[in-house]
Amino acid sequence: MAKPATPAAPSPPALRRAPAGLSLVAGAMGKRTADEFRAVSPNSGEDIPTPYFAAGAADVEAASRAAWEAFFDYRNRPAAVRAAFLEKCAENIVALGDDLIAVATTETGLAPARLVSERDRTVNQLKLFASVLREGSWVNAAIDHGDANRRPLPKPDVRRMLRPLGPVAVFGASNFPLAYSTAGGDTASALAAACPVIVKGHPSHPGTGELVAHAIAAAVAQSKLPAGVFSFLHAGAQRETAVGIELVRHPCVRAVGFTGSPAGGMALAREGSSRPDPIPVFAEMGSVNPVFLLPNALESQAASIGEKLAASITNSSGQMCTCPGLIFGIRSDGLETATRAISEQMNQLAPQTMLSRRIRATFIKRTSEIAAAPGVQVRGGSPEPGHRAQGTSHQTETKFPIRCSATLFRTNFESFKNSPTLLEECFGPAAVLVVCENEDQLITAASMIQGSLTASMFAGAADAAIAGQLLATLELRAGRIVFNGVPTGVEVCAGMVHGGPFPATNQPHTTAVGHHAIERWCRPISYQNAPSTLLPPELREENLPQVRRRVDGVWIEPAKPTKDAEKPDTASAAKLKK
Amino acid sequence: MAKPATPAAPSPPALRRAPAGLSLVAGAMGKRTADEFRAVSPNSGEDIPTPYFAAGAADVEAASRAAWEAFFDYRNRPAAVRAAFLEKCAENIVALGDDLIAVATTETGLAPARLVSERDRTVNQLKLFASVLREGSWVNAAIDHGDANRRPLPKPDVRRMLRPLGPVAVFGASNFPLAYSTAGGDTASALAAACPVIVKGHPSHPGTGELVAHAIAAAVAQSKLPAGVFSFLHAGAQRETAVGIELVRHPCVRAVGFTGSPAGGMALAREGSSRPDPIPVFAEMGSVNPVFLLPNALESQAASIGEKLAASITNSSGQMCTCPGLIFGIRSDGLETATRAISEQMNQLAPQTMLSRRIRATFIKRTSEIAAAPGVQVRGGSPEPGHRAQGTSHQTETKFPIRCSATLFRTNFESFKNSPTLLEECFGPAAVLVVCENEDQLITAASMIQGSLTASMFAGAADAAIAGQLLATLELRAGRIVFNGVPTGVEVCAGMVHGGPFPATNQPHTTAVGHHAIERWCRPISYQNAPSTLLPPELREENLPQVRRRVDGVWIEPAKPTKDAEKPDTASAAKLKK
Repeated sequence: MAKPATPAAPSPPALRRAPAGLSLVAGAMGKRTADEFRAVSPNSGEDIPTPYFAAGAADVEAASRAAWEAFFDYRNRPAAVRAAFLEKCAENIVALGDDLIAVATTETGLAPARLVSERDRTVNQLKLFASVLREGSWVNAAIDHGDANRRPLPKPDVRRMLRPLGPVAVFGASNFPLAYSTAGGDTASALAAACPVIVKGHPSHPGTGELVAHAIAAAVAQSKLPAGVFSFLHAGAQRETAVGIELVRHPCVRAVGFTGSPAGGMALAREGSSRPDPIPVFAEMGSVNPVFLLPNALESQAASIGEKLAASITNSSGQMCTCPGLIFGIRSDGLETATRAISEQMNQLAPQTMLSRRIRATFIKRTSEIAAAPGVQVRGGSPEPGHRAQGTSHQTETKFPIRCSATLFRTNFESFKNSPTLLEECFGPAAVLVVCENEDQLITAASMIQGSLTASMFAGAADAAIAGQLLATLELRAGRIVFNGVPTGVEVCAGMVHGGPFPATNQPHTTAVGHHAIERWCRPISYQNAPSTLLPPELREENLPQVRRRVDGVWIEPAKPTKDAEKPDTASAAKLKK
Repeated sequence: MAKPATPAAPSPPALRRAPAGLSLVAGAMGKRTADEFRAVSPNSGEDIPTPYFAAGAADVEAASRAAWEAFFDYRNRPAAVRAAFLEKCAENIVALGDDLIAVATTETGLAPARLVSERDRTVNQLKLFASVLREGSWVNAAIDHGDANRRPLPKPDVRRMLRPLGPVAVFGASNFPLAYSTAGGDTASALAAACPVIVKGHPSHPGTGELVAHAIAAAVAQSKLPAGVFSFLHAGAQRETAVGIELVRHPCVRAVGFTGSPAGGMALAREGSSRPDPIPVFAEMGSVNPVFLLPNALESQAASIGEKLAASITNSSGQMCTCPGLIFGIRSDGLETATRAISEQMNQLAPQTMLSRRIRATFIKRTSEIAAAPGVQVRGGSPEPGHRAQGTSHQTETKFPIRCSATLFRTNFESFKNSPTLLEECFGPAAVLVVCENEDQLITAASMIQGSLTASMFAGAADAAIAGQLLATLELRAGRIVFNGVPTGVEVCAGMVHGGPFPATNQPHTTAVGHHAIERWCRPISYQNAPSTLLPPELREENLPQVRRRVDGVWIEPAKPTKDAEKPDTASAAKLKK
């Protein structure tokens, strides 16, 4: 018997491989506007020739309305359809290949190898959320069956699950042009949750954003979803902040994801909460990521700890949200050894490229403030004026490569205690080493730390007592506590919390990375005595065997899939539809 | 062989059975202060003789500091210890017997039978959270084991769970003097989460609050917990709002639970978010609880629907947060029948007692505003001046029983659309029936509703299409959607959501009732490569078989308890301690 011919693979979509400079509103290219801007190449300091045109108020309106219309369709698409759509996004981004990496390299000054690995992370995040959707437990379903015979009152049937909030506006980060930008964590988790997404493009990497946006829009079309599920709006020139504010104020936008500066995040949070109908703004902002070096760890591993820290501080020019900014230790030979290791590594570093003039200017301002604090010395790195003299304002300087030098500052506990500026984030390759005289000072220092994404400690076996004390304090101040490792490198997994108390974020009950990130775009809804046909598929009695949920107080695991059930997702999609 | 003698039951604590008028600060009675106030008996309108003394700033300070100190101990107590403590609270409240019901009846004017059932709910909520703690899955643990051999980077061991925020200030509700007050849902869930609690006493039922506070404080002592785990502060006279504001501003207070008016809730939310270290304020505020009567349902059950609605609107003088305030239907004989049924039931009602002069004054103000809206008529109830003429200010009137009459207003869709006042809550036994001409008007009306705790629809089999359309809109506007039933009566279960979009609450991702309420007092924390001894017990490898959690992406159920494991909780507590 002749084998049936394998159907020809569908031809890949014609992806845009060079930016047009235009926004993408519900699948349609925007128009040129008066608000033209250009990106800057950090490696040369020169403008990149491609002109970009900022979205107008009409684009914001059109994208928001289209997202709202699309929401009523998209939120009812079976989980498997959304999963396949996310995988299609991933596939299309991969298909952009070196074209995407080249544009991103030029726009950000980040090394191509770093960008390739970031692209892979972006793609894996999309796939992760596809798997989260297929597994299904994320909706946190709870079903309590009714009991008409209960006295004194009959017991109603009550079923609860997470449901999507509506269209989400995403403000990507400059430091993760792929993994935390157009198709980054916020976009992937919001689309997974069944929320349409409108991305406010970052003016530092508009071409990177636009190419990725076309990859997503192509996936929307391939998946036969309403075009309003995704829009991308360029923001720059006179419209750089206006596009974002208009989005946060728009009645059709129901939640906001932001990654960036505390000033920007808090301004958007205020906009969100002063609407007539307040909406949540999830802002990830600044973080000092303190590191504590405990005595026993320093006794045996001081040099290696110092090397790891130096690499962590200077990785991607320190432009990581989890970059260590404060290091604490108790005066000892070990601490000297660690300090020397950090300094030596920094001393050998050539000046590094930063993402933008604005970030460099802020870095120089912050390092100057730190250097000026009483009792603070420069202990390592290259603080010589040669690297700093290009000016401190991003508006006046031009044509210089955008570079900075790594710096290790050093101070003692008393000076630290009296200089509030040392508690603030310094975004870039700099850290302050605080030398304490004893364990009490170390614990007191920990209790002064602002809310942070991470807190780390290097602890040897004999450090157990002080480590326990420190942990009790750090648990109140950080989202993730790292032992014997550096905070940079955020594993994407169910156990991850990338969040933390203010000012690291304004919503410490959530995470921006990992499985649980999907929850922020949702709220729970209860359905009481609802007819099965009106329930979301996940709560229907006939679908109960498919996903794990809590039924009458007992957790029920899904039935083991049969061979039949292992067929492609379209089958399970159809099943869920019934 | 002689059976061993059953050990004598420990003698019950000497519970205070009459209020002393004093605050309870970390187990110690407060002092008399200059800010003396009295509660009012709603049934007589007379002051109740017992003098109460509002807490001073020093009491707020002492209670907050003690809570902070206690937190570091309490949060490390095994779940089974906290569970036993909650059960002890329940037991002590039951032991107050009729003394508690008598005080509450006098202070609130609520019927003793209602208060007994509310007391039972309060006690059951405490027991529920004890069972939630024993079952253990609420911490939402996720464990991802590390892999040193992963390339390009080793995979860290990352473990996450919910951890308590710290001391919680609870502002109880006037309308639930037991189930949503001193030992109510917020207190029970916060104590369960391992957060110490400071209750700001409600000035309308200070004696009720104080007796319950002593029952909890006795349980704290019996459970050998630090006294700072619970404090109760009287607030009245010149200190009525100051006590609360000082609590929300105190650095040791880490979260706030509030149930009351939108003005009060939003004021506290602003206080919470304008701190240098913002804290979450969970405010449950006003809700209109719309009810939609669909054509087919009205054809066969109009009279019975009307009777159910009348009972729901007038239950406890309409002083329920889920009391129906807006009723929508399409002009029909059935709608007339339902209207008549509501009106007739209201017409037969004698004037009802309200909780306080302030609530009555607001009710009269709101019903006057509604009555004055163009196109609104009084359709049922007793709107004659006799019941309203006692004055409208809670400051000037005295010595009259605090009573009001139930009212059914009626208007049409056009008038509804043009009168924003009809969208606002009217707290008390009144509802507005909006007569629509067709399904389009009904759906448009639904889309105008403010965020609400509940939305209900009565739907017959032939109403499926319109019910589906309506549901799509109501899912964006309510926390719980009720089919063929009234919204009053909130089942305490895992499937319950008692929450909803603004202005019903300011934090729609949470619930104030049911298992999931415990989550609001927590945030997730990740521990990366942590030594087992420093991990919370729930995340330690050796305890993995005890509670369900997600391990390396797979949900793991606890091992079936052996006979040995079924022994009393002290055993499992000890086991967890290791």
